[in-house]
Amino acid sequence: MSTFTVGDYLLTRLQEIGIRHLFGVPGDYNLQFLDRVIAHPLISWVGCANELNAAYAADGYARCNGAGALLTTFGVGELSAINGIAGSYAEYLPVIHIVGAPATQAQRQGDCVHHSLGDGDFQHFIRMAGEVSAATAQLTTDNATAEIDRVIVSALQARRPGYLSIAVDVAAHEVAPPTQPLQTTQPASAAVRHAFREAAERLLAPAARVSLLADFLALRWQQQSALAALRRGRAIPCASLLMGKGVVDEQQPGFVGTYAGEASAGQVREQIEQVDVAICVGVRFTDTLTAGFTQQFDAARLIDLQPFSATVAGEEFAPLSMADALAELQPLFERYGAQWQPAAALSEWPSAEPAAVISQHAFWQAMQRFLQPGDLIVADQGTAAFGAAALRLPSQAELLVQPLWGSIGYTLPAAFGAQTAQPDRRVILIIGDGSAQLTIQELGSMLRDRQPLILFLLNNEGYTVERAIHGATQRYNDIAQWNWTALPHAFSLQKQAQSWRISETVQLDEVMARLAEPQTLSLVEVIMQKADLPPLLRKVTACLNQRNGG
Amino acid sequence: MSTFTVGDYLLTRLQEIGIRHLFGVPGDYNLQFLDRVIAHPLISWVGCANELNAAYAADGYARCNGAGALLTTFGVGELSAINGIAGSYAEYLPVIHIVGAPATQAQRQGDCVHHSLGDGDFQHFIRMAGEVSAATAQLTTDNATAEIDRVIVSALQARRPGYLSIAVDVAAHEVAPPTQPLQTTQPASAAVRHAFREAAERLLAPAARVSLLADFLALRWQQQSALAALRRGRAIPCASLLMGKGVVDEQQPGFVGTYAGEASAGQVREQIEQVDVAICVGVRFTDTLTAGFTQQFDAARLIDLQPFSATVAGEEFAPLSMADALAELQPLFERYGAQWQPAAALSEWPSAEPAAVISQHAFWQAMQRFLQPGDLIVADQGTAAFGAAALRLPSQAELLVQPLWGSIGYTLPAAFGAQTAQPDRRVILIIGDGSAQLTIQELGSMLRDRQPLILFLLNNEGYTVERAIHGATQRYNDIAQWNWTALPHAFSLQKQAQSWRISETVQLDEVMARLAEPQTLSLVEVIMQKADLPPLLRKVTACLNQRNGG
Repeated sequence: MSTFTVGDYLLTRLQEIGIRHLFGVPGDYNLQFLDRVIAHPLISWVGCANELNAAYAADGYARCNGAGALLTTFGVGELSAINGIAGSYAEYLPVIHIVGAPATQAQRQGDCVHHSLGDGDFQHFIRMAGEVSAATAQLTTDNATAEIDRVIVSALQARRPGYLSIAVDVAAHEVAPPTQPLQTTQPASAAVRHAFREAAERLLAPAARVSLLADFLALRWQQQSALAALRRGRAIPCASLLMGKGVVDEQQPGFVGTYAGEASAGQVREQIEQVDVAICVGVRFTDTLTAGFTQQFDAARLIDLQPFSATVAGEEFAPLSMADALAELQPLFERYGAQWQPAAALSEWPSAEPAAVISQHAFWQAMQRFLQPGDLIVADQGTAAFGAAALRLPSQAELLVQPLWGSIGYTLPAAFGAQTAQPDRRVILIIGDGSAQLTIQELGSMLRDRQPLILFLLNNEGYTVERAIHGATQRYNDIAQWNWTALPHAFSLQKQAQSWRISETVQLDEVMARLAEPQTLSLVEVIMQKADLPPLLRKVTACLNQRNGG
Repeated sequence: MSTFTVGDYLLTRLQEIGIRHLFGVPGDYNLQFLDRVIAHPLISWVGCANELNAAYAADGYARCNGAGALLTTFGVGELSAINGIAGSYAEYLPVIHIVGAPATQAQRQGDCVHHSLGDGDFQHFIRMAGEVSAATAQLTTDNATAEIDRVIVSALQARRPGYLSIAVDVAAHEVAPPTQPLQTTQPASAAVRHAFREAAERLLAPAARVSLLADFLALRWQQQSALAALRRGRAIPCASLLMGKGVVDEQQPGFVGTYAGEASAGQVREQIEQVDVAICVGVRFTDTLTAGFTQQFDAARLIDLQPFSATVAGEEFAPLSMADALAELQPLFERYGAQWQPAAALSEWPSAEPAAVISQHAFWQAMQRFLQPGDLIVADQGTAAFGAAALRLPSQAELLVQPLWGSIGYTLPAAFGAQTAQPDRRVILIIGDGSAQLTIQELGSMLRDRQPLILFLLNNEGYTVERAIHGATQRYNDIAQWNWTALPHAFSLQKQAQSWRISETVQLDEVMARLAEPQTLSLVEVIMQKADLPPLLRKVTACLNQRNGG
């Protein structure tokens, strides 16, 4: 065990990029590598109940930590995880997927070994991974260290998954430790920066109304501070899309709400779109977040910053990183910002009609009161995410959602991963009963690791988001009815969890009062009405049904 | 709703090939198609807790029913299911995977819609499916009916999955109902049959010792009756591999046991290998089932029947179906069978040393006594499947295992699918705690559908099969400890299930006595020792560890 192996080299690189936890499921093709993980002083093994959940956990971890890593076994393990990896690809998360593979000789001979398709072709799964990875590599004893570096750097630069297939014998092969840090710098050009700034100034100098719309790519490229600096002392209208909610400080003056095209609440749309110059930072317009692409921006008055390029009034500037572009905008904001019109005052949340049973409106109002600075709210696709869009986040609070990929059930393991990355943070998971069924077993891992997560389980008897789109009373939108509050006790031999089942508004406030600083996992089953929808979801689903042909 | 659509056409074809249940999870790209499923008089919708489980269920259904079908949604749904589809590919099950996709126009425009990767490329997932399907098609309004027929016929002929991507508008497009039945006949040649028979006769006529080894491909091509007819009145040594266990009647004279190369028990190996002519029917030698390819057959004395060809003493005959080849062997068995040496009498199961706690030996001995004719035993990869190898099955009883693909957790949803196909059969699931965690939520579907399944949950505190291969005391082989007997109550609001937790041999007999004709789901948690292994597994895992480099 004293030799330094390919497995050790990989762990050294993972540690270098800030990874302290490796999620996954053991399998006989990855056990020797796992021995090195267990022996590693700074990287912990986090076993999950299944591989899809492990991929979701690694994705949630990467959202909080900058990067994540996942270990599975050949064929069965990696394919179980691949939907999670695809989500990381769609939503720009660098997750390093390490797959333990059969011995090189068995692969070369085309042996009919377990976890293969039995056809002698060992390349099926790396080809599949290639569809959802920034880079893939099948390591050999000759190329292992160079390929590890290439895949990790590609994944970090693209903020997308990297795939490493490591045969059992290659993992154990002796190599020299790295002598140089990973090289992750990307091309830059002072001339392009300068040209971008001049073009931006031509738009901004004469402007009276300027708006700022930020989205998830600004989160992935960690531009929160740069955005806050732009806005400091200038209350120009500022919004995010649901997917990037939390990237702009919602307590800072100028915040107008969550932008959603024609489904935007109040005056959000007008304040963002009807301006002399709109500045988009890391924005992607997605069907569900724009009520079906109803956004209207005039290209001639748009400054659009993307990760590796920017566009000003239709002219593209590249290579130009988002960080560099924001740095160029800062002095323009200093010079011209005083002349730009501030945002209208943010309207108060309309108060709910007093109701005995918990409505969507009452639930989200209570949630708004419950939130504390620094909270991480994890909201599953469905009523949870669309309801959360209307929240005004406290400072340092963040929202974790997956609206583009939209894999229901994702958030339960993702919350586990996020809490693993940030054990001292209050993590609040809001998930529907239909979604929670897909991935419920990770509750066992939360309990095993004594995570003090708070779960609000919105029980509306099935797939309410699907009902809203189509088939409101069709039985395919029903699900098996579970005894939700009994689950924490079933998923652990320890009895450290607490659970409640509530259906009245007054109970919600009582329970929330006890969860200010939870010490143990808490599950709150909230009984809601099947047909009750948050307003944004009602607008969005009507549009989706129309796009699907009724 | 009175027009006949592409969706209706597909359902008509599914019904034609014997499919009465469609497994899956709803998603907004498949809801309109689901309306037609619900309206269909002869095909029932079976909603599952997640897509991987649904794929496993469809696979288990196909094993009992000849074919199965699965419905998922684009991207998130289909990728969650793809490990199950890969298992169906590896182990030869025709599962028709129907994927509801975004509208044709959105795909053509490359819209950034939910469940896509956001890059405008809608072909990623059909390419991935192509790696694990006999045929794939993206239906259009022009090609839909022809492509449905082509994919279904290809899947049936190859006994492998077929993939159909159906955009929401295509599913609703009006077409004419089919006028001709599906054409599934495959090429045949009287000359090849004749030549095969002559070659087989040259080997068999002078032989004194002839053996018969059958495997899972004979199950998939439904040759159980033909095999029984060959053996009738001739007690020549006959065995199956674990993967095909049940394909030969184990009560018929001549059955010698489960063949596993050098890991075979007693005299199985000698009686099958050391003969003048060995006849293999639908056999594939896999690492885990042969203790690492230790089988020894002399090609010059081998008759090997595969689905579409046969080999006699090294000479190949094709096209020749397994059924035709067996039909040609039948008269040779009639003519020469009387001269062939019968098998040695089958040795009795050695009695267990009386022990208070339940050993593997005592468990499998009790299971042997518990079995009834017609039972379906579903045994997960791990101690369960390898323990089941030693059972002598009653007549009409069958074993459902997945040893080549070997995806742990597979059997729990597969048992759900099998019981759905055969509601009147006694289905006995034997699964370890490590495996059951991966897919446990399908317990909710079993309870919802009031299936009287019997689950033996072997609790040996983690991945015992992995411990046996490597890392016996490493904590990566530990799992979160659950309160297993509380699960049926947590997964259903009805209290119709019964559960027991037992650790003593005497309790096992008592519980089994109550399960002769179960009316409700029964879960028996059997406490076993971490390091206790069935004998076959001990031999196999020692070999696998060696192949993985120790």
